[in-house]
Amino acid sequence: MPEIIRSLQNAQIKSAVKLRDRRGRMQQKRTVVDGLREIRRALQSCFPIETIFVFPDAISGPEAAYFEQLLADYGDIPILHVTREVMEKLAFGQRIEGAVAVAKVSEKKLADMVLPESPLVVVIEQVEKPGNVGAILRTMDAVGADLLISADGRTDLFNPNAIRASLGTIFSMAVVDATSEETIAFLKDNQFQIYAARVDGSVPYTTVDMQQATALVLGSEAHGLSDQWHQAGIVNIHLPMQGIADSLNVSTTAAVLLYESLRQRS
Amino acid sequence: MPEIIRSLQNAQIKSAVKLRDRRGRMQQKRTVVDGLREIRRALQSCFPIETIFVFPDAISGPEAAYFEQLLADYGDIPILHVTREVMEKLAFGQRIEGAVAVAKVSEKKLADMVLPESPLVVVIEQVEKPGNVGAILRTMDAVGADLLISADGRTDLFNPNAIRASLGTIFSMAVVDATSEETIAFLKDNQFQIYAARVDGSVPYTTVDMQQATALVLGSEAHGLSDQWHQAGIVNIHLPMQGIADSLNVSTTAAVLLYESLRQRS
Repeated sequence: MPEIIRSLQNAQIKSAVKLRDRRGRMQQKRTVVDGLREIRRALQSCFPIETIFVFPDAISGPEAAYFEQLLADYGDIPILHVTREVMEKLAFGQRIEGAVAVAKVSEKKLADMVLPESPLVVVIEQVEKPGNVGAILRTMDAVGADLLISADGRTDLFNPNAIRASLGTIFSMAVVDATSEETIAFLKDNQFQIYAARVDGSVPYTTVDMQQATALVLGSEAHGLSDQWHQAGIVNIHLPMQGIADSLNVSTTAAVLLYESLRQRS
Repeated sequence: MPEIIRSLQNAQIKSAVKLRDRRGRMQQKRTVVDGLREIRRALQSCFPIETIFVFPDAISGPEAAYFEQLLADYGDIPILHVTREVMEKLAFGQRIEGAVAVAKVSEKKLADMVLPESPLVVVIEQVEKPGNVGAILRTMDAVGADLLISADGRTDLFNPNAIRASLGTIFSMAVVDATSEETIAFLKDNQFQIYAARVDGSVPYTTVDMQQATALVLGSEAHGLSDQWHQAGIVNIHLPMQGIADSLNVSTTAAVLLYESLRQRS
C-alpha cells in the first residue's frame, strides 16, 4: 500500500499545481496530463511521464481496467496516491480525474525534426485557443500528417486543454515551436509547397497539388495570417465561401485542407 | 431618453432571464441573442426579435457603430435600457454584452420545409453540445447548405451557445427539430441520397455522389448514430482514419463532408 499524500504543502504537489499556468510550464519545461486514458496514451507513445498522482476513489468502470493495465505495463513509473482534497487542487477547476501525471515537454527545435518523404506539415501562426490546437492535432492524426509547427504561438502546445482536446493524439505527433521567420526558412530550405490559407486567397484549395512535400499554413482566430506569409514562393489559397459569415473556424479550415490532401494522396 | 430598467424584479427581465435555461426556452418558445453583432444579423435575416435590452456603457468601438446602424434600420423594435446589474443578470455568466435580445423561435415542422432543387441537408442525431451545433451551422452557411435537421436532439437548436458558436449564421439557415423516424421518412419521401457517417461505414465518403438531393447524417458525440439508420436505402460512409484516435469531432466530420459535396457540385 503506497503512502498517501495529504498535504497541499507537499513540494511535489505545489510544483505540479504550478503547471496549470503557462509560466509554470515554461519554467519547469513540464506539463500536466489529465485522465488515465490520456496518461496511457502518453505512455504508449513514449512521452516522458515522470510521476502519476492517483486518487483511487475516483477510478471506476473502464478507468479501473485502464489503471490495472497501466500498473502492469509501466510498473517503473512512480505512482503517488493523494487525497480528494489534493486531487482537487491538482485538477484545478477541471473535472476531477482519477489520475493526473507530470510529464517533461520536448525541447526539440525545428532543425531537429526528421521528416519522411513528401511530408504533410501544418503550420499554425499565433493561434490562441488550446481547444483549436487540440482539434487540429486530432485531424492531423486521422489523416496521418507528419508535423505541427506552432509559429509565434500564443498558447503553448502542451497546454493541458490542448492535450485534452487532442484526445491524447498530441503525444504521437511531432510538434514544435518556432518563429514565423524560422518556419518560412525551414519550409523553403526543404522544398515545401507552401499553401497559406487566407479568406482572400486567390487560388481555390482543390486546385493545388498537395502530393509533394506540403505545408498548410493557418493564421490566428482573430487576425488570420501575418504579412510575413505574403512573399514569393507562397501560394495563397482559399476555401470557397458562399454564406453570410466571412470565415470558418481555424480547426474546420484545417480539417477541410487535410482531408483534401489525403484525398489527393490516396 | 428612454426609461432605464433598474429592478431585477421587472417582469420582462425575469422572463428573459428564464430563457437561459432550456426549460424556459421550451415554455416561452423564445430564446436570447447575445451581442449587438448577432442581434443585427438576426434582424437582417428577419428573425423575429421582440425586445432588445441595452446597457449603453458597455457599447463602444465597432459596437457603437453597429448600435447606431441598428437604431437607424430597425427603429420600430422596442429597445429598453438597463443598468449594469440588470445586464449582468441577463447575461448570466456570459461575457457582459452591450445588448441582449429576446426573439421568438420558429415552430416550423419538417413538413413545412420548402427546399430548392438538389438540396443539401445535414441531419444531426442526439447531438449534445451547442458548440458543435453552432460550428456545423457555420460550415453549412459557408458551403451554401439548405437545411439542418436536429433528430431526437439533446440540445435545443436555439440554445444561446449554439447561436454564439454559429456566429449568427443560424438565423439565415433553415433549421428544424424532428424525431429520427420522421427524418428518415421525410428523406425517403423526397428521394434523398442518405449518407450516414459511421466510423465503421463501408463506403469512403469521396466515392459517393453528392450532386443529387443529399442528406449527410451524423450521430452524437458519445455514441454515434442510432440503429434506426441501419436500413435499406441508407449508405454508411466513413472518413479514412489512419491515426491512434478512432473518431473525429462531429463538427470536423461535418465540415469534411460538406466541403466534399461543394467540391462535387462546383
